[in-house]
Amino acid sequence: MRIAVDALGTDNRPDPDIAGAVLAAREYHVEIALVGPEILLTQKLEQHDLAGITVEIIDAKQEIEMAAKPSDVTKGFEQSSMHVGMNMVKSGQADAFVTMGNTGAAMAIATLNTLKRIKGVKRPALTAIYPVYDRPMILLDIGANADVKPEWMVQFAEMGSIYARTALAYDQVRVATLSIGEEHGKGNQLLASAQDLLMQSDVNYVGHIEPKEILNQKAEVLVFDGFVGNVFLKTFESSIRYFTTLLRQEVDRSLFAKIGALFMRSSLYRVRDRLDTNTIGGAPLLGVDGVVIIGHGSTNAEGVKNAIGQAQKAVSGGTLDALKSHFAQSKPVDEIIP
Amino acid sequence: MRIAVDALGTDNRPDPDIAGAVLAAREYHVEIALVGPEILLTQKLEQHDLAGITVEIIDAKQEIEMAAKPSDVTKGFEQSSMHVGMNMVKSGQADAFVTMGNTGAAMAIATLNTLKRIKGVKRPALTAIYPVYDRPMILLDIGANADVKPEWMVQFAEMGSIYARTALAYDQVRVATLSIGEEHGKGNQLLASAQDLLMQSDVNYVGHIEPKEILNQKAEVLVFDGFVGNVFLKTFESSIRYFTTLLRQEVDRSLFAKIGALFMRSSLYRVRDRLDTNTIGGAPLLGVDGVVIIGHGSTNAEGVKNAIGQAQKAVSGGTLDALKSHFAQSKPVDEIIP
Repeated sequence: MRIAVDALGTDNRPDPDIAGAVLAAREYHVEIALVGPEILLTQKLEQHDLAGITVEIIDAKQEIEMAAKPSDVTKGFEQSSMHVGMNMVKSGQADAFVTMGNTGAAMAIATLNTLKRIKGVKRPALTAIYPVYDRPMILLDIGANADVKPEWMVQFAEMGSIYARTALAYDQVRVATLSIGEEHGKGNQLLASAQDLLMQSDVNYVGHIEPKEILNQKAEVLVFDGFVGNVFLKTFESSIRYFTTLLRQEVDRSLFAKIGALFMRSSLYRVRDRLDTNTIGGAPLLGVDGVVIIGHGSTNAEGVKNAIGQAQKAVSGGTLDALKSHFAQSKPVDEIIP
Repeated sequence: MRIAVDALGTDNRPDPDIAGAVLAAREYHVEIALVGPEILLTQKLEQHDLAGITVEIIDAKQEIEMAAKPSDVTKGFEQSSMHVGMNMVKSGQADAFVTMGNTGAAMAIATLNTLKRIKGVKRPALTAIYPVYDRPMILLDIGANADVKPEWMVQFAEMGSIYARTALAYDQVRVATLSIGEEHGKGNQLLASAQDLLMQSDVNYVGHIEPKEILNQKAEVLVFDGFVGNVFLKTFESSIRYFTTLLRQEVDRSLFAKIGALFMRSSLYRVRDRLDTNTIGGAPLLGVDGVVIIGHGSTNAEGVKNAIGQAQKAVSGGTLDALKSHFAQSKPVDEIIP
C-alpha cells in the first residue's frame, strides 16, 4: 500500500508532516510518497532513520496557504502538494492522500480539479471522527455544505455508515440526527423531511439525539447539515477551551489552588489526552473518488501518523469500492433536484 | 411595582419559587403576587418572615407539567398558574410575570391565550442571558422558531437591542450573528439574506462571530434561528458538563489528584459560579405584549430572586413601551410573507 502525504500540511510544516510520515511507514508497514518541494524534503529526510521503510519524495513546488479561499486554489495551483498528491491517487500511483492543510482548499481541489465526486453522490461531505469514550463517532457534514437538501442528508448517513463499517470495522452502525428534542418530528423542516427519508433508507437510523446525549454512545454516525455540524463542533471545542481558561484564571488567583493543580496534573493531562483529536489524527473527505484524509493544521507528528493510519484502514477496509458500488446501485432519490 | 410569580415553576416547586419571591420582595422592594393553589401557598408562606414586604396569593388550581407539550396546554388550562399570572399582566393587575416552568408552554400560553404578540412583531423569541465575563449577552432566538425568515432575524436583533438598552441599561449595544466564519457572506442562505437586511436596519450590526469568539465580548446581542440557537446553547452546556465528568473520572482514579482537587476546591467553585445561570435567573420572552421572564426548572431560590430582578429591571426600564413604540413605527419589512 502506498500513501501520498502532503508535506506542507501542518502549521509547522514540513517537520511534523515528515516525522509523522516516517513513523507511519514503520508502524503501519506502508510506503509513503511525501509530496512537497524536492530539495527541502530531501534535506529534511536526511535527519530521519529510513532503514527498512520506503519514503519517497514526489516534487510539488507550490504551497497552499492556510488562509487561501477554496475559490483561489482551483486555478493556477496545479503544482501544489494537494493537486499533485490527489492526482497520484487519481492515476493509481497512490492508494490514498493525507493532508493536514487547508480543509476548504482540499475539498475544492478534490471535487473540482482532481478526484471528482463518486458517481451518484450529490455532495461530498467533510467529516470529523470524534473520540467518544472508547468508540469514536463520525460526524458529517461538518462544513462543506451550509445549505443542504434532505436527500443529501441521507447520502451523508450512507457514506458515514459505510466508512464506519469498512474503515473502522464497526459491526453495528447506528445513525442519528442532531436535533433540539428527541421526539420524531422535533427540529426544523429540513430534519422533518430528512427523517422521513432516513426511515425509508437502508441505514440503521435511530432518530434524533440532543447535544446532551451526543457523548452517550447512542450512535456511531451523527448527521447534520454543514452549517449546524460546524457550529456544533466549534461550539464543543470552544466551550471546553472557555472552561479551561476560566479554571486557569481562578487557579492563578490562589497559591493553594496552584498546589492543587500540581497534584491534579496527571489527571488533567489524561483528560486532555482523552479529548485530543491527535489520537484520531484525521477524518475522511467522503464522496470523492479516492481516499482522502484531512487533519487539523495544529496536528503534531503523532497526529499525522494516526491520520495516515486512518488512510491505511480505509484502504485495507475497501471503503472506496464499498462507497462506489453502493452509489452505483442506489436509485437516485432526487434526479429532479439539481 | 407588582410582579406575578408562578409558584409552580421550578422542578422542586413550590419551595424555591416561594423562597425566591420572598427574597425578591425584600431586595427589590416589589410587591409579589404569588400564583398557585391557595391552600398550599398559604401554608408554605407561613414559614417565611413577611414583615415589611407584600406577598399576596392569587389562586390558580391547575398545574402545567414540565413534560407537557405546548399544544396540550392552550386549551383546558385556563386555571393554570401560567394562564392566571399572564392574565394579571394583561389586565394590568401585575407589571410582569415570572416563571421557572415549562418554556414551550409559557410561550404558547403567552402568544396564543393571553398576552398575544406586540403589534408589528412577526414572531416572539425565546432568549437566554448568558454570563459572559462581566457583561451578560442576550442570545435569541434559542428555540421558539426552528425555521425562520431573514426578516424575523432582524426583528430578533431589534428586540434584543431594545432589551439590552432598556432593561440591562447598556449604552453600547452591538448585534452579531453566529456563523461558521467571520467574513461577510460566510454561512448559509438564511444568514446571507439576514446580513443584507441587518446592514440596512437601525441596529448596530457588527457582523458574524464564530463560536470561538462568542465569549470575547464582541457583541451584546447574538442572533440566530431558533434551531441553531438551541443547538448552540445546549452544546455549550453539555460540553462543559462532559469535560467536568471526564475530570471527575480521572480524579477518582488517583489519591494524589483527589488531594489536589481538595486544594483547588474554591477555584472550582468559583468557576462553577461564573458559569452559573442562577446568577441571571431568567430571560425575557420577547415580542409578546407584556413582560414575561422565564428561567430554568432547576433554578434555586437565589435564581428565582434574580429572575424577579430581571423583571423589575425590564419594568422600570420601560422595555415593553420601547418595544411597542418601535414596532408601531417600524415599517413592515415583509407584509407579503405570511
